[in-house]
Amino acid sequence: MKGKFITLEGPDGSGKTTISKIVYDKLSAEGYKVLLTREPGGIDISEQIRNIILDKKNITMEARTEALLYAAARRQHLIEKVKPALDDDYIVICDRFVDSSLVYQGVARKIGIDEVYQMNLFAIGDIMPDLTIFFDIPYEVGLARIEKNARVVDRLDLESKEFHKKVYEGYMIICDKYSDRITKIDANRTIEEVADQVIAVIKSEL
Amino acid sequence: MKGKFITLEGPDGSGKTTISKIVYDKLSAEGYKVLLTREPGGIDISEQIRNIILDKKNITMEARTEALLYAAARRQHLIEKVKPALDDDYIVICDRFVDSSLVYQGVARKIGIDEVYQMNLFAIGDIMPDLTIFFDIPYEVGLARIEKNARVVDRLDLESKEFHKKVYEGYMIICDKYSDRITKIDANRTIEEVADQVIAVIKSEL
Repeated sequence: MKGKFITLEGPDGSGKTTISKIVYDKLSAEGYKVLLTREPGGIDISEQIRNIILDKKNITMEARTEALLYAAARRQHLIEKVKPALDDDYIVICDRFVDSSLVYQGVARKIGIDEVYQMNLFAIGDIMPDLTIFFDIPYEVGLARIEKNARVVDRLDLESKEFHKKVYEGYMIICDKYSDRITKIDANRTIEEVADQVIAVIKSEL
Repeated sequence: MKGKFITLEGPDGSGKTTISKIVYDKLSAEGYKVLLTREPGGIDISEQIRNIILDKKNITMEARTEALLYAAARRQHLIEKVKPALDDDYIVICDRFVDSSLVYQGVARKIGIDEVYQMNLFAIGDIMPDLTIFFDIPYEVGLARIEKNARVVDRLDLESKEFHKKVYEGYMIICDKYSDRITKIDANRTIEEVADQVIAVIKSEL
């Protein structure tokens, strides 16, 4: 593995997706080999798994079932898309990765960070991110952005504000626990400002 | 948990499914509270997961993805169906459980028994079978029975004879490793003989 594996994390509505596209365009224009992806990343098997996770009719889904399904989709995306690109020397920018599971299932759904981490090691092996950028934004601001953009609502969007508050608290724990790997940036600024900082942080890792 | 959790294991075509129905009928007729189930057990979310696993078009599915999907389906079936019945004092007879993953993914797909076991602990917690009955039959006999019965062929049935041979060898390892929990019976006899022995083994556990 010769490339760089960079993951983006943050609450819903923190701007990761919008900004990652700008970052991708700029780095590509500068001549870097960049792959922008997100789980399930167009990998057919992972898309099928994600459909089960997000289907609003699956209200009886238990927290550990959800965590295992995310790990399964993650594994297939990693093997089919991320690892080949890293082997081919790409900068791989992935919108959400294992930290999302630690926070959403480990903290917000209360399974525990260490248990979710151990299980995810089965899925990811030794492919950990070289760098993780956390988009820091108050969860209320993120939720307001989602509502404003009228994104299609899925099963996870239906969770209570209390859930999203726990997600944010979870990210604070993760940022502290993996401070060597995670760089926190202030995402409550203009898109251009945040994108420029993300590019600067990525370049410092190259 | 007050009931008894009994799992049936063995190669494809070993007669588990046919015989478990006879055992269920006889024990029920004697007045025992019995639940006969098999993963995914009619649990909607688990059925959706199983459809992904067995879909013949999913040929790129990686071994660890498969193992995680089985564990996810197992978790939901356990929570929605098995555990409530055990709590209600039922004898739960489950056609295949965690040992199938140890053998199919751990041995035949070469992930390793211990790794698959550790990951499955995330799914099953402390709900291990009180008793496991292994239907011992040469894998060639099992395969011949499947072909004769012209069962609908799924993705796993398409595996090579070499794969089914490894499955059998895997079961031999598991029977040795968990000899306290697993009782081996000779399944290469008449249906009536095997059913009678299964009932005798179950009663010895009650």
